[in-house]
Amino acid sequence: MSADSALTLVSATRTFDGWLKRYKHRSQVLNCDMVFAIYLPPQADTAAVPVLWWLSGLTCTDENFSQKAGAHRVAAELGIALVCPDTSPRGLELPGEHDSYDFGSGAGFYVNATQAPWNRHYRMYDYVNEELPQLVREHFPVNGREAISGHSMGGHGALVLALRNPGRFTSVSAFAPIVAPSQCPWGEKALAGYLGSDRESWKAYDACELIAQGDSKQALFIDQGDADNFLQEQLKPELLEQACWKHKHPLVLRRQPGYDHSYFFIASFIEEHLRYHAGYLFETHR
Amino acid sequence: MSADSALTLVSATRTFDGWLKRYKHRSQVLNCDMVFAIYLPPQADTAAVPVLWWLSGLTCTDENFSQKAGAHRVAAELGIALVCPDTSPRGLELPGEHDSYDFGSGAGFYVNATQAPWNRHYRMYDYVNEELPQLVREHFPVNGREAISGHSMGGHGALVLALRNPGRFTSVSAFAPIVAPSQCPWGEKALAGYLGSDRESWKAYDACELIAQGDSKQALFIDQGDADNFLQEQLKPELLEQACWKHKHPLVLRRQPGYDHSYFFIASFIEEHLRYHAGYLFETHR
Repeated sequence: MSADSALTLVSATRTFDGWLKRYKHRSQVLNCDMVFAIYLPPQADTAAVPVLWWLSGLTCTDENFSQKAGAHRVAAELGIALVCPDTSPRGLELPGEHDSYDFGSGAGFYVNATQAPWNRHYRMYDYVNEELPQLVREHFPVNGREAISGHSMGGHGALVLALRNPGRFTSVSAFAPIVAPSQCPWGEKALAGYLGSDRESWKAYDACELIAQGDSKQALFIDQGDADNFLQEQLKPELLEQACWKHKHPLVLRRQPGYDHSYFFIASFIEEHLRYHAGYLFETHR
Repeated sequence: MSADSALTLVSATRTFDGWLKRYKHRSQVLNCDMVFAIYLPPQADTAAVPVLWWLSGLTCTDENFSQKAGAHRVAAELGIALVCPDTSPRGLELPGEHDSYDFGSGAGFYVNATQAPWNRHYRMYDYVNEELPQLVREHFPVNGREAISGHSMGGHGALVLALRNPGRFTSVSAFAPIVAPSQCPWGEKALAGYLGSDRESWKAYDACELIAQGDSKQALFIDQGDADNFLQEQLKPELLEQACWKHKHPLVLRRQPGYDHSYFFIASFIEEHLRYHAGYLFETHR
């Protein structure tokens, strides 16, 4: 193990006969120290297991999903490791970085920034797509099969990573994702800030645009609460439905009556998502 | 409904096809405004349901259990309402009230204080034993069958309420409870502060003492992590084992290997506790 890939254990907590472990490491991509969480199910004691990547939403760290989603129970049953990255670089003091909840710290949007001063650190796309997966493969008993999911900004991240990397993930799902960041206030603020005003450069981080480009035909599995405060202004699932219909992209989008944008919504349906991913992660005939 | 028992809805969140509702009300017992949470399972839409009282530990509010225990799923399956009181009076500025995590706000210890200035407000025993149950029965579709559980300071509260009120609860369980507050630093600080230095007055709030008094023979079901940081200094389950053995009080105390004091421990075993209580709450032959 090189010094560059060293992990420092932050905490280890027994949960559902597995271990939730949090690690600190120096990210070369982000030029800062980062913390991530991995849930290792009991099966990982004796065998290599598949991984579900979980990308969190605005203001979250690696901790929210672990504490609130109730996912460990099903992951322990199925034998799936859960990896939760943080949502932005940390420990920096860039100008304005901590001023708003929807830009800068806690709001990396899973893009590689091109605009100063963000471009030296805010490269969350490469971090979650390359650097952190490499670290996980080096340090943990994983078998190379990986699925991805996420919530809101993290749902956007999951869709973008999957659509841009056909074959990389066995399966992709999302909870209340930002499906068209080029067409909503959260996304426009973030993409303009990190990538600049040329909207052409935004397309690589916009699920609806990627559907139109058509590089991937991987099925999308999405749950969306119909009492979500952000539904009409920010999330706009109808734009994804239209793009998928137009470009014949397979989509299951479920509107869940009465559910909001909170982790209570995620907790209510995470079991179905984990079992959906298990169907692909453990598929024997590919 | 009298003005005194009015409830103001703070929030309503859909979770596992039921509703998590938080209410504010004026407590006559505590002389302040309080918030509590109730999870109403889907069965409550059409029938009266039994209640599990959950008493939380130091520093908690009504929210921790709802967010982190993963209990709604099983409560929704079984048809049990969950009521989560706060852990102390709120909104006050008594001298020193907010200075430490283990006394004053967030640390009511489920006692009726007799010492000034606490005695005007810190009457959490009566609040959780009488005032709040009465409110719940007035306002929600509950059937009068009630069980009780809790964590740490709240485990102490659950044991004390059950042992002092034989027949009141169908069943009682606890996670990592303070079983002998008269014999540990947390309890000695709280009981001395709220009740004064006469240790005789502490006995009514000490599970081991209540076992010795023998008014109740209700079975106790307890889980305790053996990697709990507070095990030896504060929790001392061996004292409860000795008291139960000496006084022939039925006890199931499970030491769970590797588990700590966190909500991850609670989440890992809450399903077994809920199913344990369901066995009593839905018992047809009494």
